[in-house]
Amino acid sequence: MTIGIDLGGTHLRMGVVDRQGKILARRKIVVGGLRTPKSIVQLISSNFSEIKSHRPRVRWRIGLGVAGIVGEGGIVYSSPHYPQWRNFKVAQKLSQRINIPVVVDNDANMVALGELWQGAGQGWDSFLMITLGTGIGGAIVIDKKVFHGDNGFAGEIGHMVVEAKGPRCACGSRGCWEVFASGSGMEKRGDRNFGRFAYYLGVGLASLVNVTGIQRIIIGGGLVSKSRFYLPAAIREMKRRTYAKTWAGVKIRLAKLGDDAGVLGAARMIL
Amino acid sequence: MTIGIDLGGTHLRMGVVDRQGKILARRKIVVGGLRTPKSIVQLISSNFSEIKSHRPRVRWRIGLGVAGIVGEGGIVYSSPHYPQWRNFKVAQKLSQRINIPVVVDNDANMVALGELWQGAGQGWDSFLMITLGTGIGGAIVIDKKVFHGDNGFAGEIGHMVVEAKGPRCACGSRGCWEVFASGSGMEKRGDRNFGRFAYYLGVGLASLVNVTGIQRIIIGGGLVSKSRFYLPAAIREMKRRTYAKTWAGVKIRLAKLGDDAGVLGAARMIL
Repeated sequence: MTIGIDLGGTHLRMGVVDRQGKILARRKIVVGGLRTPKSIVQLISSNFSEIKSHRPRVRWRIGLGVAGIVGEGGIVYSSPHYPQWRNFKVAQKLSQRINIPVVVDNDANMVALGELWQGAGQGWDSFLMITLGTGIGGAIVIDKKVFHGDNGFAGEIGHMVVEAKGPRCACGSRGCWEVFASGSGMEKRGDRNFGRFAYYLGVGLASLVNVTGIQRIIIGGGLVSKSRFYLPAAIREMKRRTYAKTWAGVKIRLAKLGDDAGVLGAARMIL
Repeated sequence: MTIGIDLGGTHLRMGVVDRQGKILARRKIVVGGLRTPKSIVQLISSNFSEIKSHRPRVRWRIGLGVAGIVGEGGIVYSSPHYPQWRNFKVAQKLSQRINIPVVVDNDANMVALGELWQGAGQGWDSFLMITLGTGIGGAIVIDKKVFHGDNGFAGEIGHMVVEAKGPRCACGSRGCWEVFASGSGMEKRGDRNFGRFAYYLGVGLASLVNVTGIQRIIIGGGLVSKSRFYLPAAIREMKRRTYAKTWAGVKIRLAKLGDDAGVLGAARMIL
């Protein structure tokens, strides 16, 4: 049986998922202040022990999604929510601790896989997953698989530059998409409505479609519930910045699975 | 036997190419003022007849690369150099005229295939091809194949926005990469040296690598011969705007095949 885990900045979500994509049991744990590699491994491991005790005869496997730069072999190079995680081999450490296979990837990739499997991506072969929340996360799905690129972390779309001389970004660059079209970006710039957010969202979406030629897009993340305040204006701006032939094929869907997407995708990754 | 054709804004280049990628014969014809669909089909067809007369017993096939927005089935939706071409089914028309199979794609895709086959892309599975000339052309090669996206024309990287409120672009958008980091962009903005060009080249390269996770890049196009004036500064800017882990894997090569790349790639497309 499979456990999908979504490790966010605030919550650790765990789900027991069957082969059909049904979540048989759920846990949502507040992470709290202890955020070292060791304490998180401990937190997952103790919760796993409890889950295991209810189903003692099952052969378990774990898929884990983490916000951040995640490379091959399940190494977290850096994470915005876990600053102490530097080149942390979380897959290896966790697997050693609980003695079962663990596979790790970036959380936006997991959300994309979840939506592909059970949500808004059903029926689509290729699409761009955009998660709008504190930052902008992204994933590129090609032929029903997450595209990783050479470095293992394709889809760092939040650090596409939309305003070369714009404000500094935490990544060291300037004018990254995430500086404008994210919750933290709005807060930092003191935006009280979604006007600027919508404008830059449209700019970035147009760029992504022009570069990749992928015309199907799923918008997810914490801010998806407020899409009525920004999506219509973003779509208008996007249209202005794409060729008619490209625009004609653009299809945008809202994510369907909410908080379950990451858990389902993490489980799907190892099924 | 295969004929690779590269239809640029000034010249029509044709090459007889064998299976090993050797160009057995070359033609370079000035296109001149007659640029209608009909006159270009005529020009290719008369040159093809001459080539054929030297090798009467051969079964010919033609691959053709055209600058512009080229869709599936060899339709040119629009071309900067051939404004009268609107939704022109060039593959079909040419094939009917000369009675052999013709396959058509975007010229930057052909250059990428050519470099992959015989040039700077040898030994690379995936890379970004950037052609710097009058405009910016691009192609995305994944697992040794050109990635086309849903619309058939992925790699319109010249219309990635790098300065959202920047100057108007011919495409209808504003602040496209091509407005800054291209020959025509420099001319329009009265730039006399490559300072601004280099800066924006670096900005755009960083964005592309962040989005796609593809770290291998080939720089080609007419301006590649001047790369010493802009590439070092562009690379410095690119480094500032990428994660250390991403930057560590970046490899940039200059195109090797010059004007032959398009001809070779066009031939490769149908081999």
